[in-house]
Amino acid sequence: MSFEQIKVIAFDADDTLWVNEPFFRNAEAEFCELLSGYMSAKEVDAVMYEVVLQNLPLYGYGIKPFILSLIEAAIKITGGDIKSSLIEKLITKGKEMLQAPVDLLEGIQQTLDYLSKKYRLVVATKGDLLDQERKLIKSGLEKYFHHTEIVSDKTELQYKKLVKHLDIEPHQFLMIGNSLKSDVLPVLNIGAHAIHIPFHTTWIHEMVDEEVHHPNFRTCTFANELRELL
Amino acid sequence: MSFEQIKVIAFDADDTLWVNEPFFRNAEAEFCELLSGYMSAKEVDAVMYEVVLQNLPLYGYGIKPFILSLIEAAIKITGGDIKSSLIEKLITKGKEMLQAPVDLLEGIQQTLDYLSKKYRLVVATKGDLLDQERKLIKSGLEKYFHHTEIVSDKTELQYKKLVKHLDIEPHQFLMIGNSLKSDVLPVLNIGAHAIHIPFHTTWIHEMVDEEVHHPNFRTCTFANELRELL
Repeated sequence: MSFEQIKVIAFDADDTLWVNEPFFRNAEAEFCELLSGYMSAKEVDAVMYEVVLQNLPLYGYGIKPFILSLIEAAIKITGGDIKSSLIEKLITKGKEMLQAPVDLLEGIQQTLDYLSKKYRLVVATKGDLLDQERKLIKSGLEKYFHHTEIVSDKTELQYKKLVKHLDIEPHQFLMIGNSLKSDVLPVLNIGAHAIHIPFHTTWIHEMVDEEVHHPNFRTCTFANELRELL
Repeated sequence: MSFEQIKVIAFDADDTLWVNEPFFRNAEAEFCELLSGYMSAKEVDAVMYEVVLQNLPLYGYGIKPFILSLIEAAIKITGGDIKSSLIEKLITKGKEMLQAPVDLLEGIQQTLDYLSKKYRLVVATKGDLLDQERKLIKSGLEKYFHHTEIVSDKTELQYKKLVKHLDIEPHQFLMIGNSLKSDVLPVLNIGAHAIHIPFHTTWIHEMVDEEVHHPNFRTCTFANELRELL
């Protein structure tokens, strides 16, 4: 694939620029522990995942929807016999997650420093705007990006809107991210380019079974490799 | 004020394009009713407002933060003796609010139809992206707007970023909205234009005491009047 035509590179944020998914996995493990008196961890996990997924179209992505779903799941799991101290713990957990330190992934800063001199960079994320802004400022990476694009979901339609909004053609757009489902497949489908940098933890909802083979597609193990490619 | 220089008009969404605040006021009244066994409505209201305001910097604006704060306030008000059925009611209320019908304000559609032929229109809101998108689609107004700008808060800094992002100068930007605090004062302070269309219900947090007198400022009673002005 040739990168000469690329005008804008969009970076996914969570688990591409910084660590995110482990905070959710950790919160889920704590949730199973808190409710271990009612059901096995596996059963708690199943109810929780069902509630989270059911609420996803209405609530969207992020920490606040996640905590609301955990509260709803906890009521289900306890059969309505829930202690307010447990709900308080969930609310506190959410607030901790919203204030957690930002842990940059390996090689990100140097890579962005290099790329920002050659391309216009933007952040493209489906997270919660306020939370993503907070992380971007805390991360010290804000200076490398022209702006942040928040989309409600990473679908072909949303990418088409994004490319139109950037005033470029799809073949001038490159998306870099850790999710094949969100950052790669819909992007390739609209005729744009994508680079996948896998992260060690992927939310089950983001998983795809297929292997991707496409002329506009590449995989990197670390962000550092982007400097050789681009 | 002369509008010949205006290139982009940004509309606030909630209570400028469609009814919003009454849904929150209604939810608050229901909340006071639900907790009437514990405190007077006035006391419940005071605790609720305190919790909502305390959480605002961390949670941001919108229905999901509001419901999380109501749950937290309910635990405080009941002294921890909360029934799960009450929490379920709050969660259900939030889901209802997220799916509520969209009620356009008087004259909005005709006004947007007229203005969209003369100016580039955008939506500028500090609400929740997914929720605002849903309302924009339901409203049938999407076709009049070039795109939606979501900001985490309507401060001078955010308006400066917005104007930069739109690739125009502040004096080429006009903001129209129902909040003097969010849609007018910071906009005038960066050298842009603002029109205020008051809505009958204003959240106390959005209220300002001052009267605004500024060459770049006008007030309209209804959206219809914009057609004569612009």
